[in-house]
Amino acid sequence: MTILPERRARLAALLAAHHVEALLVTSRVNVRYLTGLDSSNAAVLVRADGSALLATDNRYIDKTRALGLEAVEASDVAARLAVPGAGIEAAHMTVATFQRLGQGLVPLPPLVERLREVKDDEELEHLRTACAIADQAFADLVGRGGIRPGATERDVARLLESRMAELGADGPAFDSIVAAGENGAVPHHAPTARPLRAGDLVTLDFGARHRGYHSDMTRTVSLGEPAAWQREIYDLVATAQRAGREALAPGAEAKEVDAAARSVIEAAGHGDHFRHGLGHGVGLEIHEDPFLGPSRTGKLEDRVPITVEPGVYLPGQGGVRIEDTLVTREGGPELLTKTTKELLVL
Amino acid sequence: MTILPERRARLAALLAAHHVEALLVTSRVNVRYLTGLDSSNAAVLVRADGSALLATDNRYIDKTRALGLEAVEASDVAARLAVPGAGIEAAHMTVATFQRLGQGLVPLPPLVERLREVKDDEELEHLRTACAIADQAFADLVGRGGIRPGATERDVARLLESRMAELGADGPAFDSIVAAGENGAVPHHAPTARPLRAGDLVTLDFGARHRGYHSDMTRTVSLGEPAAWQREIYDLVATAQRAGREALAPGAEAKEVDAAARSVIEAAGHGDHFRHGLGHGVGLEIHEDPFLGPSRTGKLEDRVPITVEPGVYLPGQGGVRIEDTLVTREGGPELLTKTTKELLVL
Repeated sequence: MTILPERRARLAALLAAHHVEALLVTSRVNVRYLTGLDSSNAAVLVRADGSALLATDNRYIDKTRALGLEAVEASDVAARLAVPGAGIEAAHMTVATFQRLGQGLVPLPPLVERLREVKDDEELEHLRTACAIADQAFADLVGRGGIRPGATERDVARLLESRMAELGADGPAFDSIVAAGENGAVPHHAPTARPLRAGDLVTLDFGARHRGYHSDMTRTVSLGEPAAWQREIYDLVATAQRAGREALAPGAEAKEVDAAARSVIEAAGHGDHFRHGLGHGVGLEIHEDPFLGPSRTGKLEDRVPITVEPGVYLPGQGGVRIEDTLVTREGGPELLTKTTKELLVL
Repeated sequence: MTILPERRARLAALLAAHHVEALLVTSRVNVRYLTGLDSSNAAVLVRADGSALLATDNRYIDKTRALGLEAVEASDVAARLAVPGAGIEAAHMTVATFQRLGQGLVPLPPLVERLREVKDDEELEHLRTACAIADQAFADLVGRGGIRPGATERDVARLLESRMAELGADGPAFDSIVAAGENGAVPHHAPTARPLRAGDLVTLDFGARHRGYHSDMTRTVSLGEPAAWQREIYDLVATAQRAGREALAPGAEAKEVDAAARSVIEAAGHGDHFRHGLGHGVGLEIHEDPFLGPSRTGKLEDRVPITVEPGVYLPGQGGVRIEDTLVTREGGPELLTKTTKELLVL
């Protein structure tokens, strides 16, 4: 059995426990995961026996048939496949669609998302490539002097993204963050026309998309010799990040991994300066299950790609974040982000 | 009254007809339209008296308060604002959220989307800029010989997108389409490593994002002197496109505008080779109301930016599409896409 029918069979095996004979999958990413088709208008009905029927519109129908799937052409794809008693993806279907399709459908919690947490060999290979592209683009940017006083945050973001494209990325994994000086205190800062200046810490958070898979990495560099406070928070974040990485293991609780890193930052008195979760799964989405955070439940499985990205953010002053993508493995995680975590002084 | 309170007042005035005292707006784009805040986690409750309460999480709360809005911090923003009897955006809220928030909420059809169809001066200015960036990037790409035999579809897409960024775009408006030769027969073709070759028609469909607003244009060029069949379908599409543009007017029926262009293509025997709608609104989304198509109902209003983009697609052989963005106006539409529609022979 090749990989796509196997994925559908694993999903089918979950349906009986939810008392449905079929699941109407309407999430674009989930349809892609189960069928290989990436379409802005497609749905797939997966039945308890593992068989599947795909619907898409005339723009995609030929491509779909080339994938060897049983497929029907429709513009209203959900309506075409809805059968009484089928489960629907409650986290994706809108209220309007649910009302339009009529009664008899059963809202279900995320099932395909859970399957997607554990990656197969092909997925891991795509993620390795996506991470390698980001590593190389960063190295090239540093090597060519792209991160220098005078360049704006936007300049740096643009250079990073175009270098990733040249290296074969299908696109950036998300809107790159480049945050210089005081902007580094804003975890989700969007690049501006602010020029980089000597004395800045500069945080770069970016990734590449490859065959639908997303990489995610963050490095903070120093323009010129860092001040004592900059070196101090850098070393603190690096220590916390290592603790987080070392806690990653199949069977570990999501909240325990978060605590491993967070407790380092809290012990240094910076707990209030790290107010986001430690990390998240990556795959066909840039943020996907599982998530690492103080209130996250559940345990990690084997072969789960996930980020570890603590930060310390000092309002009005600056910040540091260091992020790798790793894969949980028995015997210790596989590190996909190879760039050094020594503080680069540029 | 400045523009944002005015938008909320226009929305508030619609609520009585739907028998609700407030609308819980959860669509990211609609929240941005009504409040100026662009956040991946925000909602706003607009009351019938025009007052509003915004909720967002700790990443965005300072920015929100800087906008001068009454705001509360919450991670579950919809739950924080849901009040019994409020309307919800049925086309955006998921079944899971609707179930979680409990009874007493009233699913409503799109209201903010209807308001967004008619643009104010500031929005039109942003759209003009977005269109001008795309025009200039195309001119520069042509001027520098970027569309040439040997370059791949991906090379051309990358050059276009990086030139738009250099010209000040916040990013591409969508994943650019570059389709050479037989790939031009696929309306939504994604760029590949196929090299452009002498004798190809090449379709480029792309746009720029500026302050949240999207431009959208398509040109088809010829690499070398076109064959008779290429010239024939180019002229046909250009004639149909002109007919579509000329039919654009406040008060025109969406289906009539579509028919004005489509009938030209049908009369030439190519009706089966033009199977998508004629156009769509553009604004904070790349595809938004109103849509032009054979089964679209409703009339156009004044000051509505919209695309006109007929095509003829010959499977296995090639295709032509020509697209402008225009704004409906009394006295004739304003053309925002200035690039020539003469067939460029490169």
